[in-house]
Amino acid sequence: GYAKPDVGRGVRQGVSEVIYGAGKTAAQIAGIMRELVRSGQERVIVTRLDPQKSDELRSLLMAQSLQMVTGYRYHALARMGTWGEPAAPGGHGYVLVACAGTSDLYCAEEAALTATMLGSEVRRAYDVGVAGIHRLLAQADLIQRASVIVAVAGMEGALASVIGGLAACPVIACPTSVGYGASLGGVSALLSMLNSCASGVSVVNIDNGFGAGYQASLINHVGR
Amino acid sequence: GYAKPDVGRGVRQGVSEVIYGAGKTAAQIAGIMRELVRSGQERVIVTRLDPQKSDELRSLLMAQSLQMVTGYRYHALARMGTWGEPAAPGGHGYVLVACAGTSDLYCAEEAALTATMLGSEVRRAYDVGVAGIHRLLAQADLIQRASVIVAVAGMEGALASVIGGLAACPVIACPTSVGYGASLGGVSALLSMLNSCASGVSVVNIDNGFGAGYQASLINHVGR
Amino acid sequence: GYAKPDVGRGVRQGVSEVIYGAGKTAAQIAGIMRELVRSGQERVIVTRLDPQKSDELRSLLMAQSLQMVTGYRYHALARMGTWGEPAAPGGHGYVLVACAGTSDLYCAEEAALTATMLGSEVRRAYDVGVAGIHRLLAQADLIQRASVIVAVAGMEGALASVIGGLAACPVIACPTSVGYGASLGGVSALLSMLNSCASGVSVVNIDNGFGAGYQASLINHVGR
Amino acid sequence: GYAKPDVGRGVRQGVSEVIYGAGKTAAQIAGIMRELVRSGQERVIVTRLDPQKSDELRSLLMAQSLQMVTGYRYHALARMGTWGEPAAPGGHGYVLVACAGTSDLYCAEEAALTATMLGSEVRRAYDVGVAGIHRLLAQADLIQRASVIVAVAGMEGALASVIGGLAACPVIACPTSVGYGASLGGVSALLSMLNSCASGVSVVNIDNGFGAGYQASLINHVGR
Amino acid sequence: GYAKPDVGRGVRQGVSEVIYGAGKTAAQIAGIMRELVRSGQERVIVTRLDPQKSDELRSLLMAQSLQMVTGYRYHALARMGTWGEPAAPGGHGYVLVACAGTSDLYCAEEAALTATMLGSEVRRAYDVGVAGIHRLLAQADLIQRASVIVAVAGMEGALASVIGGLAACPVIACPTSVGYGASLGGVSALLSMLNSCASGVSVVNIDNGFGAGYQASLINHVGR
Amino acid sequence: GYAKPDVGRGVRQGVSEVIYGAGKTAAQIAGIMRELVRSGQERVIVTRLDPQKSDELRSLLMAQSLQMVTGYRYHALARMGTWGEPAAPGGHGYVLVACAGTSDLYCAEEAALTATMLGSEVRRAYDVGVAGIHRLLAQADLIQRASVIVAVAGMEGALASVIGGLAACPVIACPTSVGYGASLGGVSALLSMLNSCASGVSVVNIDNGFGAGYQASLINHVGR
Amino acid sequence: GYAKPDVGRGVRQGVSEVIYGAGKTAAQIAGIMRELVRSGQERVIVTRLDPQKSDELRSLLMAQSLQMVTGYRYHALARMGTWGEPAAPGGHGYVLVACAGTSDLYCAEEAALTATMLGSEVRRAYDVGVAGIHRLLAQADLIQRASVIVAVAGMEGALASVIGGLAACPVIACPTSVGYGASLGGVSALLSMLNSCASGVSVVNIDNGFGAGYQASLINHVGR
Amino acid sequence: GYAKPDVGRGVRQGVSEVIYGAGKTAAQIAGIMRELVRSGQERVIVTRLDPQKSDELRSLLMAQSLQMVTGYRYHALARMGTWGEPAAPGGHGYVLVACAGTSDLYCAEEAALTATMLGSEVRRAYDVGVAGIHRLLAQADLIQRASVIVAVAGMEGALASVIGGLAACPVIACPTSVGYGASLGGVSALLSMLNSCASGVSVVNIDNGFGAGYQASLINHVGR
Ligand SMILES: Nc1ncnc2c1ncn2[C@@H]1O[C@H](COP(=O)(O)O)[C@@H](O)[C@H]1O
Ligand SMILES: Nc1ncnc2c1ncn2[C@@H]1O[C@H](COP(=O)(O)O)[C@@H](O)[C@H]1O
Ligand SMILES: Nc1ncnc2c1ncn2[C@@H]1O[C@H](COP(=O)(O)O)[C@@H](O)[C@H]1O
Ligand SMILES: Nc1ncnc2c1ncn2[C@@H]1O[C@H](COP(=O)(O)O)[C@@H](O)[C@H]1O
Ligand SMILES: [Mg+2]
Ligand SMILES: [Mg+2]
Ligand SMILES: [Mg+2]
Ligand SMILES: [Mg+2]
Ligand SMILES: [Mg+2]
Ligand SMILES: [Mg+2]
Ligand SMILES: [Mg+2]
Ligand SMILES: [Mg+2]
Repeated sequence: GYAKPDVGRGVRQGVSEVIYGAGKTAAQIAGIMRELVRSGQERVIVTRLDPQKSDELRSLLMAQSLQMVTGYRYHALARMGTWGEPAAPGGHGYVLVACAGTSDLYCAEEAALTATMLGSEVRRAYDVGVAGIHRLLAQADLIQRASVIVAVAGMEGALASVIGGLAACPVIACPTSVGYGASLGGVSALLSMLNSCASGVSVVNIDNGFGAGYQASLINHVGR
Repeated sequence: GYAKPDVGRGVRQGVSEVIYGAGKTAAQIAGIMRELVRSGQERVIVTRLDPQKSDELRSLLMAQSLQMVTGYRYHALARMGTWGEPAAPGGHGYVLVACAGTSDLYCAEEAALTATMLGSEVRRAYDVGVAGIHRLLAQADLIQRASVIVAVAGMEGALASVIGGLAACPVIACPTSVGYGASLGGVSALLSMLNSCASGVSVVNIDNGFGAGYQASLINHVGR
Repeated sequence: GYAKPDVGRGVRQGVSEVIYGAGKTAAQIAGIMRELVRSGQERVIVTRLDPQKSDELRSLLMAQSLQMVTGYRYHALARMGTWGEPAAPGGHGYVLVACAGTSDLYCAEEAALTATMLGSEVRRAYDVGVAGIHRLLAQADLIQRASVIVAVAGMEGALASVIGGLAACPVIACPTSVGYGASLGGVSALLSMLNSCASGVSVVNIDNGFGAGYQASLINHVGR
Repeated sequence: GYAKPDVGRGVRQGVSEVIYGAGKTAAQIAGIMRELVRSGQERVIVTRLDPQKSDELRSLLMAQSLQMVTGYRYHALARMGTWGEPAAPGGHGYVLVACAGTSDLYCAEEAALTATMLGSEVRRAYDVGVAGIHRLLAQADLIQRASVIVAVAGMEGALASVIGGLAACPVIACPTSVGYGASLGGVSALLSMLNSCASGVSVVNIDNGFGAGYQASLINHVGR
Repeated sequence: GYAKPDVGRGVRQGVSEVIYGAGKTAAQIAGIMRELVRSGQERVIVTRLDPQKSDELRSLLMAQSLQMVTGYRYHALARMGTWGEPAAPGGHGYVLVACAGTSDLYCAEEAALTATMLGSEVRRAYDVGVAGIHRLLAQADLIQRASVIVAVAGMEGALASVIGGLAACPVIACPTSVGYGASLGGVSALLSMLNSCASGVSVVNIDNGFGAGYQASLINHVGR
Repeated sequence: GYAKPDVGRGVRQGVSEVIYGAGKTAAQIAGIMRELVRSGQERVIVTRLDPQKSDELRSLLMAQSLQMVTGYRYHALARMGTWGEPAAPGGHGYVLVACAGTSDLYCAEEAALTATMLGSEVRRAYDVGVAGIHRLLAQADLIQRASVIVAVAGMEGALASVIGGLAACPVIACPTSVGYGASLGGVSALLSMLNSCASGVSVVNIDNGFGAGYQASLINHVGR
Repeated sequence: GYAKPDVGRGVRQGVSEVIYGAGKTAAQIAGIMRELVRSGQERVIVTRLDPQKSDELRSLLMAQSLQMVTGYRYHALARMGTWGEPAAPGGHGYVLVACAGTSDLYCAEEAALTATMLGSEVRRAYDVGVAGIHRLLAQADLIQRASVIVAVAGMEGALASVIGGLAACPVIACPTSVGYGASLGGVSALLSMLNSCASGVSVVNIDNGFGAGYQASLINHVGR
Repeated sequence: GYAKPDVGRGVRQGVSEVIYGAGKTAAQIAGIMRELVRSGQERVIVTRLDPQKSDELRSLLMAQSLQMVTGYRYHALARMGTWGEPAAPGGHGYVLVACAGTSDLYCAEEAALTATMLGSEVRRAYDVGVAGIHRLLAQADLIQRASVIVAVAGMEGALASVIGGLAACPVIACPTSVGYGASLGGVSALLSMLNSCASGVSVVNIDNGFGAGYQASLINHVGR
């Protein structure tokens, strides 16, 4: 077929192939999953998968084999499907995923689940936006002992800077499209994070929780 | 001449005319100042005035009269010239001017001096950017007892949100053009402030310390 | 749960917690409302609530208790739900809410209702856009005697500047997304208001009637 | 040479060729002027000409002939050079050129001089920005009796809308680059004018006083 | 009610009130129409009216009176409703409405119908885009004898410049949102038209056929 | 050293290495030129070279050898330096370089000289902007018989569409930064060209005459 | 009718008329197709045609004549309809269409089918995005022997640069709207391609597979 | 004074304070350096320091003490000043700094020197832009064995994606402002990097070599 799944990447990059579910049919996804599992991958991640498509996918996996369907799990909040168990935790410490508001959860969970699947212990600090700074300061300990932090926020994205100033470890900032008007679909948060006056902050694309979790887990395994 | 200085505004708006010095010659400024003083204004503010133009202006005021030149003062950091004494403080409390970094001082001082001239007591909390949040928290008392706060910051502009969350009073956020690359000449800080997740924050134009100080002083006098 | 409602904010910021309804289910909103009331808040505001979700919310409040449902009210034009009575008016004077056209009413009413709930007397001057300046001038008295003014406008947003020139009090400008083409979803009005040549104008996010009403009421209570 | 001056345009468009001086040397301008005069044009306009280049140009015209140099005149405020007398006024009425602040004069004068050269009677209403609306209303008569109006303004560009609402004739709005920060080099004023809620307003490029004056004069001669 | 229809505008601006139908219910439109007719207006224009809302409006007018419903007419291509007959043609000559492609017809017809209602003779030159320049040149005569031209185009908007070069009369350029990708919803065409290298071109908002037709008719009546 | 000149590219891409002179010192350029010539290249092109740097470069080449300095030539209008003779013309036909105004010459000449050096016969049609369409139509023959056309224009960039409609061959559109205000440094022309309604038009970066000439010459040699 | 199909273009531009299906009804398309075939065109292309509209179109062609309906074919992936057989291949060599991911197929196929219809042999290299560079390098031979290459990619659009560096022939880069967040609907890929550091790359509009295929086929026939 | 150097940060963040030299005088920098050294910091970094200011700074340090001036070193390419020796290398492996062209060296060196000072072994792969992919592939080994990579590139910024695909470790992408026209001062490269289709890539601000080197070194020390 047209698609050339990159089955060697698990080896070359240390982690397995990930399927971007947004523009694909359930049938296409099922096909790629089978090919990946056949080629020896122990786990598969599908991102941007809505519940309907997941149901369809589950039926198709059922038709493939019992092994395929029993290994499959859907995660509604993170809008992700996974196959296989998370890799055994093997990083330096834990990845902390922090988010500003309850509206950012979809993206924070995408990051958290991705890092978990890739073999990182994950802790969470949710709803700690800077407008009520005491909520964030109450987590200072959790922040200072992390190996790497994912900071997820929409609107003005100030969370990344404040966490960046509190933490000694690398911070991966992930802007979300949460907001309206001058939030410009997440561009304001993105710009804010790129201009962070704190050192040790780098940024991924708007709503790219997957990318943030992936990078965080890579960092958590550096030198391993 | 072409200019129509609005001598009635001192009455109508409660404060005197302000001269935007950027596109004007020293001679034009001197002329408008004389007209304003003649019409009975007790004080004059000139913004965006560089040192050279101020020197020239001083010579021209000297040529006008002793009264004109002795009343004149230049404020290098704020890049402003003033004539006459500040109005007697008459607001509800004090205006707090906070800024994120030393690079934002030009704008913070423009706000502080404007509010002072318009009859507000002004206090300052400078270099309290969010990347070292303890510096800001050390000022919590000063923040919580203010009548109105001007928050000046460039780069990611997160200061406004954090102060907005700590304060009970109105916050006037003033973005600066400090930064580079994705700061887009202050647009990132501006967007960040407009999207503040804290309530009680409103925003003025990039580098408009004058406008922020003016609005803060108006607020400090509401109901007076 | 994930959400950390900030029950102390009523004290710290002088006003009670506000629920942003846009991304939340009726069940989530009902849950937060109960928690806020239990913690002693006397009134609750829910913004960006459409009629269907409000109906659902009402049923859920009914199931909670009689007190919860009888205290609840829906405001269609403002797209807001409120629980409890408005705080007793205690500001310096009245908040004037002005808007340019009938299409801006949704946002103007959000501002007006917010300020009312927070204990400000509110007056209205609607459909006074600058293209027929006599309609605005007919309200000159109302404008000049206000304690603070909220100016709501879409398209070119010129209303804020003209009101800013007429008024002696602080003006909070609120751009709306009303318009098409080069209005860029409210960005034109926003930029226009930020560049206002009138002093004493500060700006909130596009369509943020809530923020404008909140800031106006804070200002109306400065020093109280 | 490379340039192909369009000597037939005087006939085809009813007005003579205009030289955009910005990217050209004095020698190039002098050459094109000679060619235009030789081909029978009675007047020539050079825009965006700074004083130095004008001096140089005058010397070159002197070297060409007495007729060339005596017909030449430089207009510092409008930054324009003209050769020949203005066409005899032949329009329906007068073109009113209005501008918001003294900083906009360069552009207003470019419009006024262009319309004058093309045979329109021109009247001026300068420094009538909307922040002090009484200054504008004092000119209501002049506005209502005009044949066509050029409205020149920077910053928020609200002047066009207010004039558009007062006038019965076509309004040509010309944004200027006056302002800073969120004025985005005139883009804010431009957007504001394009979104004008008044009917009968059309817009030219930022700082294009020439284009505004040209269009106004064309309109003033419609049907002639 | 909230709306303040400006019944004096027919006199002050020489033309009657126009209703922007986009954000209004059929009931609101019917109410404003009745008020306008009662106050003596001879004709009413409703823009941005879709067929369903027009049907509803017709029923409501029927309920008002026979006079109201018989005077009403819907124009599908222009998405407009009109009440009353067009004003008797009284301009200097004809308004030419030109458009680039068949996709631009909705906007061209809005301009044409507006100008007709306001008492201008209108001629049309449709599907004359510049990619097949002979189609446009075939209309050279129609172009050169017009009193004023409306040039409607999306995509790259080059039509305005080419017509501007051919015509001796004022050209009102109206960009449309036709296109995709880098057309940016009409912004490309808008920018193109604002930068036209032809003189005598001014521009209205994207898809603002109404504004273009209104301005064209005003121009056609200058001095009348 | 740090630079890795790609001496194999002459073979791999069929044309020799080109030096982007903008950010380099004369010494760096002289060094790279020597390396290229030593490795057997028969000609070298340096773009974006100002006269001063060229003079310095000439002195350095003189110090290298007689062969280096005698092969060197500076082209002021195109702001380019060349070493060696143009490749012998070997394309299918001629490359036509057209430009809209005399201000675009710097870019048109960069394209023309590049194509010449790469072995294409080049013809020119300059100052044929669309505002005076007869100047362009007068070149119809030259346009219709070309193998490939480079269309260079700033401001509204309409030239590319009109030529695209007249020509049967591929058109490479090159926007220039000529213009002001809403030309946005060439972005308007760029967008206009990307949205061309004519088929057979592709676009290069703003002011990238080199890229346009290179692509045109490649096309002229396709299949050779 | 309003539409003026350009039946002479087949001759003037060497290829037949193409119908942009997006804003047209099936009836309009059927009408234009008949007119084109009647005027002697041997093939017709309809772009941006969704399956439903194609079904409707087929019925209408059936009603026209047997010849019309039997010549018609729908291509789901490319979202195109064609009538008649592809022109006999007559170019210098083959057009290679490469795309980065499976999500870009719709656009790649539009390019491939267009070039095929216009008489070019087409080869494909799909799913060769740069993140797994070995997939692209595996096609080096196919790349180096092509006459012209169409490089289709969304997201960061890096494919065009890498192919541009590998190929000796002209590359037509076609950005797609595939991506989210900071991909800005394809603008990021577009900008990336315009800034390509490889020579011999020119760019068409976002998602304009038709334009890329058309230009590629024109190039493949240069001199024929 | 106004500045509040954060002497505790060396402890809290694991690395010492860094001075942003851009907006500061030599005297201010010298003062902050003294304060930092007195408070016990072993090394100081000053970024964005031009040669003139460095000379001045050296004189001022000389006046302070012998220890201050002998510890000072200026790095012209990186535009940085350092005081004290680099921290002893203590990371997991080496930081690889790669850049696309010689014009990006200023930024690559800023990253390399920062990481060195913070105790990371640094290796370099310069001038490996994707337009000549073999230069990059020749470094495959160096890429695959790195602990973390900084990828510096301007123009289209494709380097980050290609390296991201080759590497197994985290990649910090740093866009530069190198380019012209549609590079938009580095925004194109920035967007390109944010949209990277390779996993394991996060991004810092345009020209922020310091931030990239800092983040890389933090990552290289994770768990240490
Ligand atoms: N720095 C400033 N920024 C914005 N507005 C200013 C500034 N300084 C003065 N103004 C306003 O500009 C007006 C005077 O403008 P002008 O007539 O050009 O001197 C004053 O009434 C102020 O409202
Ligand atoms: N319409 C609104 N626009 C902006 N901020 C709002 C709005 N409604 C509520 N908020 C703010 O959002 C906070 C609550 O957010 P959440 O926790 O997501 O419900 C409140 O404290 C308010 O400050
Ligand atoms: N997908 C497309 N994108 C851009 N231009 C197209 C496309 N399809 C057709 N065209 C062009 O649009 C013209 C026809 O437009 P129309 O007359 O509206 O059907 C053709 O001559 C083509 O040059
Ligand atoms: N080139 C740079 N780009 C971004 N941030 C920097 C740069 N150099 C220093 N910094 C940060 O700026 C802070 C110091 O700012 P300042 O107090 O203004 O000297 C340091 O703690 C660094 O985190
Ligand atoms: Mg940190
Ligand atoms: Mg607050
Ligand atoms: Mg005011
Ligand atoms: Mg009017
Ligand atoms: Mg004309
Ligand atoms: Mg063509
Ligand atoms: Mg190549
Ligand atoms: Mg990788």
